[in-house]
Amino acid sequence: MAAPDTVVDFAEKLAAFDELWSPKIIGQVNDLHVKAVKVLGEFVWHQHDDTDETFIVLAGRLTVRLEGRDAVELGPGQMFIVPRGLPHCPVAPEECHLLLLEPAGTPNTGDQPGSDRTATDEWI
Amino acid sequence: MAAPDTVVDFAEKLAAFDELWSPKIIGQVNDLHVKAVKVLGEFVWHQHDDTDETFIVLAGRLTVRLEGRDAVELGPGQMFIVPRGLPHCPVAPEECHLLLLEPAGTPNTGDQPGSDRTATDEWI
Repeated sequence: MAAPDTVVDFAEKLAAFDELWSPKIIGQVNDLHVKAVKVLGEFVWHQHDDTDETFIVLAGRLTVRLEGRDAVELGPGQMFIVPRGLPHCPVAPEECHLLLLEPAGTPNTGDQPGSDRTATDEWI
Repeated sequence: MAAPDTVVDFAEKLAAFDELWSPKIIGQVNDLHVKAVKVLGEFVWHQHDDTDETFIVLAGRLTVRLEGRDAVELGPGQMFIVPRGLPHCPVAPEECHLLLLEPAGTPNTGDQPGSDRTATDEWI
């Protein structure tokens, strides 16, 4: 799908849905999707063997637990890129609004496709 | 180059340099670079034949003039993705701070490599 030919307003996109842990596609740069997502609580441990995954916090706070390493803490205006193959678990103690950058077709739960957190990404 | 293994703070990165129109690489997602750049005034008309280019405004305002189409106006929290092959010219009437998403090695002036705006991107 080609990149939508319009200005994308992050706040407007985030106001358009309420579901948690359900990324919405808001743009495409070559094969990479830009997604908006709202999260709260703990996700599932998972990994993406074939791709890095980018978290950019727009509002709230996010902890990304990492296997064998210290967790990282992110606030608004901060980014963390999880290297491919590294097991991680996002946790948001309060509602957190994020941008994600990852290739089109990347499952949100990585190697845990049967999780009850597994979502089908849709364009909004 | 692998993604740096740290939290990236956009404000901190932007405070680390003053040059205009000189993108700094602050992250890598697979083959895509995340760059921070400060702009003011008018860039050069150029195009990227092989890649889309993403502009995300963090502060200030940006106009992206587009060949054969209405220009787009962006403010903080807004994104525009220039489709590959479309001639465009960014203009900032006041200083504007941006994130760019584009493949590693993408020249900032696209098909105008000899422009006095051509810069060598460096990691910060």
